[in-house]
Amino acid sequence: MKMNPRCTYCLLSRVHFQSKLSTDDEDLISKTIKECLEVMNRHYDPEAVSASVATKIHRKCYEVLNDNDPYAVTKKLISQAALKVLPVAKEKIYEGSPDNGELFRRAVLASVVANYFDFGIMGFDASEDKFEAAFLKYFEHGLDVDDTPKMLGLLQDVVYIADNCGEILFDVLVFDIIKKLGGKLTLVVRGGPILTDVTLEEIDEFEIDKKVDRILTTGSNAVGVLIEEAPAELLEAMKNATLIISKGMANYETLSEHNFGPIAYMLLTKCECVAEDLGIEQGLSVAKLMNYP
Amino acid sequence: MKMNPRCTYCLLSRVHFQSKLSTDDEDLISKTIKECLEVMNRHYDPEAVSASVATKIHRKCYEVLNDNDPYAVTKKLISQAALKVLPVAKEKIYEGSPDNGELFRRAVLASVVANYFDFGIMGFDASEDKFEAAFLKYFEHGLDVDDTPKMLGLLQDVVYIADNCGEILFDVLVFDIIKKLGGKLTLVVRGGPILTDVTLEEIDEFEIDKKVDRILTTGSNAVGVLIEEAPAELLEAMKNATLIISKGMANYETLSEHNFGPIAYMLLTKCECVAEDLGIEQGLSVAKLMNYP
Repeated sequence: MKMNPRCTYCLLSRVHFQSKLSTDDEDLISKTIKECLEVMNRHYDPEAVSASVATKIHRKCYEVLNDNDPYAVTKKLISQAALKVLPVAKEKIYEGSPDNGELFRRAVLASVVANYFDFGIMGFDASEDKFEAAFLKYFEHGLDVDDTPKMLGLLQDVVYIADNCGEILFDVLVFDIIKKLGGKLTLVVRGGPILTDVTLEEIDEFEIDKKVDRILTTGSNAVGVLIEEAPAELLEAMKNATLIISKGMANYETLSEHNFGPIAYMLLTKCECVAEDLGIEQGLSVAKLMNYP
Repeated sequence: MKMNPRCTYCLLSRVHFQSKLSTDDEDLISKTIKECLEVMNRHYDPEAVSASVATKIHRKCYEVLNDNDPYAVTKKLISQAALKVLPVAKEKIYEGSPDNGELFRRAVLASVVANYFDFGIMGFDASEDKFEAAFLKYFEHGLDVDDTPKMLGLLQDVVYIADNCGEILFDVLVFDIIKKLGGKLTLVVRGGPILTDVTLEEIDEFEIDKKVDRILTTGSNAVGVLIEEAPAELLEAMKNATLIISKGMANYETLSEHNFGPIAYMLLTKCECVAEDLGIEQGLSVAKLMNYP
């Protein structure tokens, strides 16, 4: 996905947000904004890939703050919030013993709704106490774009590219169904801390490695999956997969520049630009299969 | 008022907003954002005056768009919306034949509430059909900071620095009281089109010159009042005034850097940074007298 004019101020707003998470030093916050403005000024281009510019901006931000994980505390809070809502999600998915197709749809829906767990996007906020109500509202609403019936036949060898902390605990509900249906599962997390994205740390903490066949990383702390920073093993796995599942907006922003497939983008269109790029409205729950003959 | 990190993305967001008002040409919008980013990168400094940087940004924006008034149509719509609500405001002010003090307070309140007529500030929007309800809600709430009793004794020679279109029609309600109380009134409007601010055009259109003793301009299309661009006559009038009334945030942002007084800032704290600078909360109705012994 290419950069939109809106990305300039949305990214700067996020830089400010995470700078305040990291420090109370107003001079340091100003310096961070100034240096990130400089990076934005150098790289803003309507032909640039949005998440690639975001990676440059966030790396500069972390460097100036001298903080390799401004969201460290936030991520713990997000995981706690997720754990509280998880039993509600499980109950909703298994309610009335649905068939495999319906079970898969509901698990996908729960994991898409959990994409709500993303702090710091302008105009979008998820505080702990609001999440259960929001989860139920979105779950009752269902998927606005639902390609789960087509995805169901492609679960033999799945590469699942995770997005945020919190959300990952709901992704496990999808893993359970894929494994139940006999699929092989490779989970991909970020190679280093970036925003509230899942890294190996949370995989260890919640023993998620026991739920999948293999864990790979994106090879770096890039926003999304930057192919030029991805390990050969990941590219190989994506090439051979019967289905790639890409969670969230940043993975979409990067992977939509390539032709991997079949690939299912599972996300909430929290941002107007991503929604526009997908040709749908903002605020929708999406499981959209692409590059599938 | 000095620049806050938040001003960077708020201003860029406003550049985007007004670019879309001016054109559908995506390439031109991108070019505008890019050139304004460059100006922001050059001038962002925590010691810079926010409205002074805003002036540089907006002038670049108008120049690249080759449009000296992107809000031309919007301003007409705002005036129409204001005219619809004006009778409600008059009724509320004169209801129950209040004494001069209460009359002045109510007129000031109405003109402060009308500061709501300001499109394009991030997170703040006033659409035509919502305005009457919003007006009544804010009017019933009253002034959060109310220095009108002190202002009442200072109305002999008032310099009234206007802010937005629409709002100016409510300012006239204050002019009526000042004139009724025997005060002399100099109205100051922008020297050229900037944002939705009042210029001589609307003064002519609504014959507001008949309501005051003298009209001056700020000498340019600067955001607020840039002293270095202000005519000598204006500076002289401000020096000799028994009271300066400064409407809205941009006038505060520029004039708070100087020591004119007594000066009453009449505004809604729509922006977090202005609220913080005034030492009060966001979203308040303010008539605050300063530089008064």
